Amino acid sequence: MPLFSRKKSEDAPARPAWEPLPPPPPVREDGLRSLEDHRDYLLSCVNELPAFGQQLLDAVDLAICEEVISPVSLPGFDNSAMDGYAVRAQDVASASVENPVLLPVVGEVPAGRPAPHRLSPGTAMKIMTGAPIPRGADAIVAYEGTDRGATDVEVYESSEVGRHIRRTGEDVAAGHRVFRPGDQLRPRAIGLLAAIGKDKVLVRPRPRVVVVATGSELVQPGQPLPSEFQIFDSNSYLLAAAARAAGAQVFRVGMVSDDPQEVRDLIIDQLVRADLVLTSGGVSQGDYDVVKAAMPELGATEFVQVAMQPGKPQGFGLIGHDRIPMIMLPGNPVSAFVSFEAFARPVIRKLMGVTPYVRPAAKARATHAMSSTTSRRRLARGIVTHDDDGNRLVSLAGGYGSHLIGDLARANALVVLPEDTDLVAAGDQVEVWLLDEGL
Amino acid sequence: MPLFSRKKSEDAPARPAWEPLPPPPPVREDGLRSLEDHRDYLLSCVNELPAFGQQLLDAVDLAICEEVISPVSLPGFDNSAMDGYAVRAQDVASASVENPVLLPVVGEVPAGRPAPHRLSPGTAMKIMTGAPIPRGADAIVAYEGTDRGATDVEVYESSEVGRHIRRTGEDVAAGHRVFRPGDQLRPRAIGLLAAIGKDKVLVRPRPRVVVVATGSELVQPGQPLPSEFQIFDSNSYLLAAAARAAGAQVFRVGMVSDDPQEVRDLIIDQLVRADLVLTSGGVSQGDYDVVKAAMPELGATEFVQVAMQPGKPQGFGLIGHDRIPMIMLPGNPVSAFVSFEAFARPVIRKLMGVTPYVRPAAKARATHAMSSTTSRRRLARGIVTHDDDGNRLVSLAGGYGSHLIGDLARANALVVLPEDTDLVAAGDQVEVWLLDEGL
Repeated sequence: MPLFSRKKSEDAPARPAWEPLPPPPPVREDGLRSLEDHRDYLLSCVNELPAFGQQLLDAVDLAICEEVISPVSLPGFDNSAMDGYAVRAQDVASASVENPVLLPVVGEVPAGRPAPHRLSPGTAMKIMTGAPIPRGADAIVAYEGTDRGATDVEVYESSEVGRHIRRTGEDVAAGHRVFRPGDQLRPRAIGLLAAIGKDKVLVRPRPRVVVVATGSELVQPGQPLPSEFQIFDSNSYLLAAAARAAGAQVFRVGMVSDDPQEVRDLIIDQLVRADLVLTSGGVSQGDYDVVKAAMPELGATEFVQVAMQPGKPQGFGLIGHDRIPMIMLPGNPVSAFVSFEAFARPVIRKLMGVTPYVRPAAKARATHAMSSTTSRRRLARGIVTHDDDGNRLVSLAGGYGSHLIGDLARANALVVLPEDTDLVAAGDQVEVWLLDEGL
Repeated sequence: MPLFSRKKSEDAPARPAWEPLPPPPPVREDGLRSLEDHRDYLLSCVNELPAFGQQLLDAVDLAICEEVISPVSLPGFDNSAMDGYAVRAQDVASASVENPVLLPVVGEVPAGRPAPHRLSPGTAMKIMTGAPIPRGADAIVAYEGTDRGATDVEVYESSEVGRHIRRTGEDVAAGHRVFRPGDQLRPRAIGLLAAIGKDKVLVRPRPRVVVVATGSELVQPGQPLPSEFQIFDSNSYLLAAAARAAGAQVFRVGMVSDDPQEVRDLIIDQLVRADLVLTSGGVSQGDYDVVKAAMPELGATEFVQVAMQPGKPQGFGLIGHDRIPMIMLPGNPVSAFVSFEAFARPVIRKLMGVTPYVRPAAKARATHAMSSTTSRRRLARGIVTHDDDGNRLVSLAGGYGSHLIGDLARANALVVLPEDTDLVAAGDQVEVWLLDEGL
């Protein structure tokens, strides 16, 4: 760990005096911090990543960081909306199936090339979709209204001035603003950027998120369990998958034991490639709470109790001299996941610059009574369905225990049960976070 | 093109006799095929890709292709839900703050290791969250209800049998089915798979989709326009971004001119890495409709008129001896995108095995009158918002013209206007496809 030992010896022999965290919000009378206060505090401690020019297809779903003024008009020139013939409307005014108008075909305009010459009155020019309208022409007759003649064409229907003609700039005028900073680039926006000739766009990158699970009891999935009292590491997979779904570029480091020095060495190694470090475990009251023990040496940290259930013990830090944000989540799988949703996902979105940072709260009608936890926000696993009218219904997915990962896997929502009620009755509207909504 | 020339010379000197496409559905009286008929026909012509074992984190959002029976129970053993002391409930039955019970601490159980010995009556053992319950103990007292003593502990509250004990298998019982084939693997499911020890899972891969735009008038974005009548290629970006958002692994090949041999050479080169080829342009009535001209030599193809607006001309083929599906979309950007949504996205989802193949139709209330097209389904660009009660509202994003990519970029939905009405009134419920819903 050259980075840290060097700094250590320069700044402070025993332990560097880390610049402290910004002042945290006051806690409530019961010593707990509200979920919103903690989330807003974390958001206030991290900055959006710097934007740089990226290839269009790498920018899908990211937020643009520049104002884009179209340098071109769309369409760039008057052009035909149909395959057919460019004519003067007055020349075909009397045309019908019974009394076709016969016009000599004096040329042809494919897409991408100008008409060979001006259209003279009483003539027609073959024209393809997207091809420029010849000077002198003011209407298009589609193939379907003609005999598709090559030398002469029989026209069976009248047209009117401007018919099937797309006008210069009617979609986008040159000089018009087409994107504002912050606009999220959905596939259709990528298409528009290409259409105005941009092949690169200024966006913030997907944050590099390092995921580490702590605990000497953890065993890598796919390996045999050495003893009946060990368990498979699920948190690093759960959090890595959730961070990826939130838009991050994820490095799942896996697990580390309960040895503080091992934890410190691993975190220091990972800091170089991290925009955010997520850990699970080791932040509670226990004697083996290694993250709580190890991390204050590496940066400015705080460990707090948040008024939520599950997920009460939370840790946060700005680690190393680059002050890389680190969110230290509790170790129970459900606590880790719920805390990820409440705190880490908003931070990932802020790093990417994609708004809203916080998942919008939706409403659903409870299909049965649900008990809350007085003075703490309960985030229960829920299954949201729709009734015949398209209204959302929600029922709980199993129990409240924070070890119930089987129930968590069945859930598609978190039900937010307020602090000021003990019980939500069947039929009441509750707030839900819909977990599978896209980026 | 050795692949094709070889086969050609063996099978048929001039043009191989490609095995024909499956019988297509009958067209309507007006010669058009309905949107649903065409979509279902394409779906019937493609098969799900073969599944193989993939690393858990590569399987996020894919559909599992195996039944998974949990080989372990979760929890795998009775364990503590809290940091605290394992006791016998009867020994602390009388404990209170006023009359604490003093118990000798006879050992300590960290997570991952068994208790050192059986708990004798009248003693306590320190225990960490997740650690196995010692034999002889039947309840946990959390740290908060004690003085956290090391040699002896003062217990300030009673407990009851089973308190803070997570029972073996109460989440998932060994032998219990946790996944059925077809279940989509959200992050929480990835967590559960890890928790039961699986590090790989049988899923179909993300389809490799090759995207090609045709048209001699096209210029690569980022390059200067050589003439005022050329345009930037937006379709290959638009379709590549949309295919990626639909879950595909995308190869954007870019553009090819209107020379049939050039188109054939390019497609043959791409077939080796494609599970699906998407082209735009060259399938209409025009004299330069190169895809329509070129592709029948390379496989079994059909070109049809679909009763929709935009997107009427559609092509489909099973190309080469491997019968790689190819969807040949029209060239107007909006037509290409709408056809992608109607036909290519369902095909991509079928290749991946992710259901439902077809985007579920949602309902929204029209904020203004919208005109339909008699006898054709109109798919108009819409902007969906929500009113204060959370009900969806939809308004149109600009005009109906299929060249209006600026309007398309502003849209977040397609409004499906039925064939049997000319006009939808303000306040009517209409069907919408929500474009930014996740995978």
